Amino acid sequence: MLNKNILSFLGCDAEYSDADIVLFGAPFDGTTSYRPGARFAPHAIRSESYGLETYSLYQDKDLADYSVFDNGDLELCFGDSEKVLSDIELHTGKILAMDKTPFMIGGEHLVTLGAVRAISAYYPEVCLIHFDAHADLRDDYLGVKLSHATVMRRCHEILGDKRIFQFGIRSGDKSEFAWNEENHTYLNPFNFDNLAKIIASLKGKPIYLSVDLDVLDPSVFPGTGTPEPGGVSFEQLRKAVTTVCQNCYIVGCDAVELSPTYDQSGASTAVAGKIVREMLLALC
Amino acid sequence: MLNKNILSFLGCDAEYSDADIVLFGAPFDGTTSYRPGARFAPHAIRSESYGLETYSLYQDKDLADYSVFDNGDLELCFGDSEKVLSDIELHTGKILAMDKTPFMIGGEHLVTLGAVRAISAYYPEVCLIHFDAHADLRDDYLGVKLSHATVMRRCHEILGDKRIFQFGIRSGDKSEFAWNEENHTYLNPFNFDNLAKIIASLKGKPIYLSVDLDVLDPSVFPGTGTPEPGGVSFEQLRKAVTTVCQNCYIVGCDAVELSPTYDQSGASTAVAGKIVREMLLALC
Amino acid sequence: MLNKNILSFLGCDAEYSDADIVLFGAPFDGTTSYRPGARFAPHAIRSESYGLETYSLYQDKDLADYSVFDNGDLELCFGDSEKVLSDIELHTGKILAMDKTPFMIGGEHLVTLGAVRAISAYYPEVCLIHFDAHADLRDDYLGVKLSHATVMRRCHEILGDKRIFQFGIRSGDKSEFAWNEENHTYLNPFNFDNLAKIIASLKGKPIYLSVDLDVLDPSVFPGTGTPEPGGVSFEQLRKAVTTVCQNCYIVGCDAVELSPTYDQSGASTAVAGKIVREMLLALC
Amino acid sequence: MLNKNILSFLGCDAEYSDADIVLFGAPFDGTTSYRPGARFAPHAIRSESYGLETYSLYQDKDLADYSVFDNGDLELCFGDSEKVLSDIELHTGKILAMDKTPFMIGGEHLVTLGAVRAISAYYPEVCLIHFDAHADLRDDYLGVKLSHATVMRRCHEILGDKRIFQFGIRSGDKSEFAWNEENHTYLNPFNFDNLAKIIASLKGKPIYLSVDLDVLDPSVFPGTGTPEPGGVSFEQLRKAVTTVCQNCYIVGCDAVELSPTYDQSGASTAVAGKIVREMLLALC
Amino acid sequence: MLNKNILSFLGCDAEYSDADIVLFGAPFDGTTSYRPGARFAPHAIRSESYGLETYSLYQDKDLADYSVFDNGDLELCFGDSEKVLSDIELHTGKILAMDKTPFMIGGEHLVTLGAVRAISAYYPEVCLIHFDAHADLRDDYLGVKLSHATVMRRCHEILGDKRIFQFGIRSGDKSEFAWNEENHTYLNPFNFDNLAKIIASLKGKPIYLSVDLDVLDPSVFPGTGTPEPGGVSFEQLRKAVTTVCQNCYIVGCDAVELSPTYDQSGASTAVAGKIVREMLLALC
Amino acid sequence: MLNKNILSFLGCDAEYSDADIVLFGAPFDGTTSYRPGARFAPHAIRSESYGLETYSLYQDKDLADYSVFDNGDLELCFGDSEKVLSDIELHTGKILAMDKTPFMIGGEHLVTLGAVRAISAYYPEVCLIHFDAHADLRDDYLGVKLSHATVMRRCHEILGDKRIFQFGIRSGDKSEFAWNEENHTYLNPFNFDNLAKIIASLKGKPIYLSVDLDVLDPSVFPGTGTPEPGGVSFEQLRKAVTTVCQNCYIVGCDAVELSPTYDQSGASTAVAGKIVREMLLALC
Repeated sequence: MLNKNILSFLGCDAEYSDADIVLFGAPFDGTTSYRPGARFAPHAIRSESYGLETYSLYQDKDLADYSVFDNGDLELCFGDSEKVLSDIELHTGKILAMDKTPFMIGGEHLVTLGAVRAISAYYPEVCLIHFDAHADLRDDYLGVKLSHATVMRRCHEILGDKRIFQFGIRSGDKSEFAWNEENHTYLNPFNFDNLAKIIASLKGKPIYLSVDLDVLDPSVFPGTGTPEPGGVSFEQLRKAVTTVCQNCYIVGCDAVELSPTYDQSGASTAVAGKIVREMLLALC
Repeated sequence: MLNKNILSFLGCDAEYSDADIVLFGAPFDGTTSYRPGARFAPHAIRSESYGLETYSLYQDKDLADYSVFDNGDLELCFGDSEKVLSDIELHTGKILAMDKTPFMIGGEHLVTLGAVRAISAYYPEVCLIHFDAHADLRDDYLGVKLSHATVMRRCHEILGDKRIFQFGIRSGDKSEFAWNEENHTYLNPFNFDNLAKIIASLKGKPIYLSVDLDVLDPSVFPGTGTPEPGGVSFEQLRKAVTTVCQNCYIVGCDAVELSPTYDQSGASTAVAGKIVREMLLALC
Repeated sequence: MLNKNILSFLGCDAEYSDADIVLFGAPFDGTTSYRPGARFAPHAIRSESYGLETYSLYQDKDLADYSVFDNGDLELCFGDSEKVLSDIELHTGKILAMDKTPFMIGGEHLVTLGAVRAISAYYPEVCLIHFDAHADLRDDYLGVKLSHATVMRRCHEILGDKRIFQFGIRSGDKSEFAWNEENHTYLNPFNFDNLAKIIASLKGKPIYLSVDLDVLDPSVFPGTGTPEPGGVSFEQLRKAVTTVCQNCYIVGCDAVELSPTYDQSGASTAVAGKIVREMLLALC
Repeated sequence: MLNKNILSFLGCDAEYSDADIVLFGAPFDGTTSYRPGARFAPHAIRSESYGLETYSLYQDKDLADYSVFDNGDLELCFGDSEKVLSDIELHTGKILAMDKTPFMIGGEHLVTLGAVRAISAYYPEVCLIHFDAHADLRDDYLGVKLSHATVMRRCHEILGDKRIFQFGIRSGDKSEFAWNEENHTYLNPFNFDNLAKIIASLKGKPIYLSVDLDVLDPSVFPGTGTPEPGGVSFEQLRKAVTTVCQNCYIVGCDAVELSPTYDQSGASTAVAGKIVREMLLALC
Repeated sequence: MLNKNILSFLGCDAEYSDADIVLFGAPFDGTTSYRPGARFAPHAIRSESYGLETYSLYQDKDLADYSVFDNGDLELCFGDSEKVLSDIELHTGKILAMDKTPFMIGGEHLVTLGAVRAISAYYPEVCLIHFDAHADLRDDYLGVKLSHATVMRRCHEILGDKRIFQFGIRSGDKSEFAWNEENHTYLNPFNFDNLAKIIASLKGKPIYLSVDLDVLDPSVFPGTGTPEPGGVSFEQLRKAVTTVCQNCYIVGCDAVELSPTYDQSGASTAVAGKIVREMLLALC
Repeated sequence: MLNKNILSFLGCDAEYSDADIVLFGAPFDGTTSYRPGARFAPHAIRSESYGLETYSLYQDKDLADYSVFDNGDLELCFGDSEKVLSDIELHTGKILAMDKTPFMIGGEHLVTLGAVRAISAYYPEVCLIHFDAHADLRDDYLGVKLSHATVMRRCHEILGDKRIFQFGIRSGDKSEFAWNEENHTYLNPFNFDNLAKIIASLKGKPIYLSVDLDVLDPSVFPGTGTPEPGGVSFEQLRKAVTTVCQNCYIVGCDAVELSPTYDQSGASTAVAGKIVREMLLALC
């Protein structure tokens, strides 16, 4: 018979009840300080996933063989960040309550705070692995506490010291690094050195993985709000996310900060989609 | 509970059984001779309909008050035009069989032929009202019979003389106009003059309305495969489609030849979506 | 000697003390519901004003002969709309306190509310002339009271009935028009009909003019957040703003909703700049 | 047998000896003050002419029935305007010496000066009809005498008073209009009013027609170096060039200031190509 | 005297009789499943070759010292893939019949099949070296046998087992790799490892080299129909094609799948042109 | 009080008297042979520096702690290269006369000649370190002596043999390399090998550093007039400029050939800004 038009990310067409992983979009970019547009990312990643295969030659696995549910995008307002975070927290909580793994597609990086609030309620001992070009450790940005530039500082307020592990950081305000000299977070600059060591040390602990895709070099990923030259290659990020997802006890994750309109070639959206696919396959 | 991600055109979220009109996309552009990309139109029109309102101040009507079903896009192959036309014909026939009105979003103009094949089987006396910049009356294009440049000639083979009424035509090969000197079709060049008169003469007859959006001037609608300067304004087209849809016995219709990537501003997609909205409201 | 780099809008290089008009930018788009980017408008209008002449053949006047001060952009936060409005209100108030006319370049339309708050404190009897494609009369948008879609409703709360005169409106939610059936505002749909009559009726009253540039047709002005087909032409808007600025007692004005990145041709930015120039010359 | 790759404008594939009209490109934009890129115009117009028909429904004539020779582009240097003008003058002179009509595709407007130098040597009494948004009557631009902003002033030095007839002018420095108060040129602002009268008065005199395509409104023609809102429509320009070419004794002409990269939709290039086609057909 | 406008790829202006290599374009993309536009590649590569030098510092050779003939583009229809392949086969055969080496610029990858048909008739023992991101080994795509996604499977039907050597493959349907487990082709995933060994093993055998440029990483080459992250660098591809062309007995070759409009920066077209230049120089 | 709008590069807001380094723009691209637009670079680098931090994690230094004066752009004419060079020479001389270091942002590469003229007058023994994809050693380009393709040849006429040290060169006319076989310059092809050795050998000598940003690979830096595949990575260039600026006695420097409109993603502008920041910090 004739059906309604269902748009899912590549092969993520399982029924909710069958799925272990629930994908959803958080199309919010209301605190983006430089170039907005990350709100368009989850829709673009779904739409452009048509150009990808469900099968991965890297992992020799096929999304068609697993059950992932794509829940679409949350309907988030603009102009009230606290309300947005509550909506994300509530939604993430619902997924956790059903014993499923939430996988959020941003949106800007502030959305991670909503998910971390929900996760930390279920897994009080959760640690955060964070890939990013920017430290995101400011206390405020132009007087605003809830911002994509302060999100890891807010997460730190929830999680406390030595629970956040940052990789690939290459940019920030001097004050952010000064604050971190007291080792509030583990901050590995520029690359993924020591990732294996950290993973080993976190064995058995629940982990939330937050991937700010601007950790990639702008040659690979120009479609983002704040392109920061000097980043990692696609292969480096692909290996890093695969390693984390295969070797950690992941209780939630996200991929944020694609801003698709800034890269009209579509390559950035393809990169985002392929990283999401590899994460999903490594989690399954 | 959590739902799958349903993407429908603006307010067209009725259940199939309740709907009088069935919207569907025909994402095909395999015979486009100049600039391909019309395959992306139905998805773009749906995605960008978020920027439109369901309410029309022109007609003081609201799509939220009517039942239209959006059936998504057909999965059409590339490289076999005859197969594509069969799929469209079959699908259109299914909708007609349920006594509903098919509303197809192209794709290139050749898709109209599939719909006209189905329509003419149900309504042998159907007439075709055709808005376009191009006559589309060639007998072949580079040796190929099935082409967006020949579609009205093929429709004429089905419908016969004096059953096709063309408006806005401003471009074609000399041979097309020469062939038409025998009045195979009624051809009103450049504008919608005489539209009211023609509508009056067609009173009670079943009508298929085919809107090639490139009838619009490229200033209004640059996002199309073959932009042809000198076209009609948005207001002229809006009034023309409203008049036809309100005053004729419409048994099927289409809107074709948006090629959204050529207009990165999104204005062409917004124009297409608004014309579709006005057609739907006038039909309801 | 060598100077710092001062970037002003076309010919607006007067000293503050000499100026009757103070131009400033309000680079905020935090509540934009559809496509953000209006934050970039004031900078783009200044930068691209290089392509315009200071002399207007329409008015036979030259900006080089008048004293306008360009104050640059306010530094506005993202993520706290109320703080943004306070900053705008405070800044507008400072300009009014010095007996100068504020001319704000948006930014999205919500910024108008900040200016109207300041203006209404100085001119309690102020009336608002509003050019726009959208009515902006919602009571809230996705639960948020401060939004570019609600800005005229918020202004109405300050000004009360029959103090807002809207022209060019062609889009809105059904509820907006329903609410306005009690004539809270004067709403002239689609065009500038009756503008002369309204101007005559407002003789001597202080007027704030708010120009949402999306009142223009998207063929003229595709570079905006929510392109709405069916708008007025450049000539129509140019005449309308000139008439208002020449014949009313203008105590403040703005031009908002250019989103320059959506029109890579730069034509939209040129249109905005030329409208601003004509407004300035008509005010001088 | 296998042939070399000849790229000609739409249907302009005659042999040189058979042709009455010789088309050539002058890909120069070295004095463009604002946005360069007109150098790419002649190649773009040829390449994109594939999307046009050789037949014109406006004139019921077909380029396939006439003999026009497309000579390709001159190889012009950058950095030495005088050398560029000499090359153009020499080339135009060669065409005139063979009793053929030169039709130059710019490039920026300064190229007209090279052609006018050659033309005025052959036709000392030549008059110039000039369509443009800008008066181009400055004496110098930032100290430079040879500039696209001074080209009509330089032409005036060759032709003298009352030999240049300008239409559509809507922009310029105050000094340009002041200079022209002594009626050095006939300047018809904003539109083509009085064109018929001027054509009648020039009966029998040799005419050079220079069409700066930015006389068009930027909605129609955003792809130009200095978009100037408030211009004429496509239909107005089409009729004007057709009238001049059909009713005047044209000894040379040009179409300049397309800058194709600024309009990625290709609509501006299509407009330029269609205007050139209509001019050619009206001349044949 | 005045000449017609000949557009050739960089320095490829030899007479046909003098040339050992014949370059021609196959502007077809009718089976492209995702993003069409490869039809524009051969024209773009020629036009943009103006930005390259004829001299290569890598090889210390200059195209100006060799004789390559650029034959322009075939006139291919859209909508009939079999007819397109016949035209390519016929044309390639003509070049082979004159003992010259055909060098085809695609178009999408299906065009390779036409060339391979002709080549295998002249050189029945020909082997195929294939650089690509995608395996192209499906048996059909949406029911269509002739497709850019099936082209190597169709070539395999002509050549048989162990005659196709694939490098750089990083994407495909699971069924493609499953089929190939029987070693129908030699498939070297991700990179050019083992290329030297394969070349050594093919010593003396006639080789057709097919370069799908999407083997490159999208950071280097975003201008393609299906960008697949994780590809090789420019240097890796440059060395690989140089090695093959210098050390193998090349009887024909192609470079396909540039889709220039997706990379408005022009970098992808520059990459394609430089790879073609290096291939030509290594062949000469 | 209310201030004028000062636009400076990232943190370069010192007073002139306090500054050791004076930044200024030379917005000229009048001899660009292929794709113009470098004139827009200095303004773009300033505007987009908003997306960068003043603090560098690479050097652990902060621009906020140093005094750099941003002098804005020179007002340069188009159409008279000699006048442009004189203006640059004069301006550079003024900065040198005050014992400050000039840092010029191009513009095309020819602007370097103006600076080198001034520098060599103050420092007759100055040497030039030159990073570029192109040798720029032609004697003329299409008959023109002053061109971005001849700039190093012109500098050589001032400086003489063995005073110019070129790195990263990967493109040029055969004649350029032939001329240089007599070792007029030190030319290190493709990369920065031997840079440390050269720096050591130049100890104590005054150095002018000229960075043509197209030395970068087009994947990193597509926004340039003549993208030349096969270049260095961001990290390679960052290290090279840092090394030179930290270890040489720099008396002047420039960064040229960004053409921002060719890279709509803004990544190229971000790269240019970050390289300038690293150079400034290494100089301070």
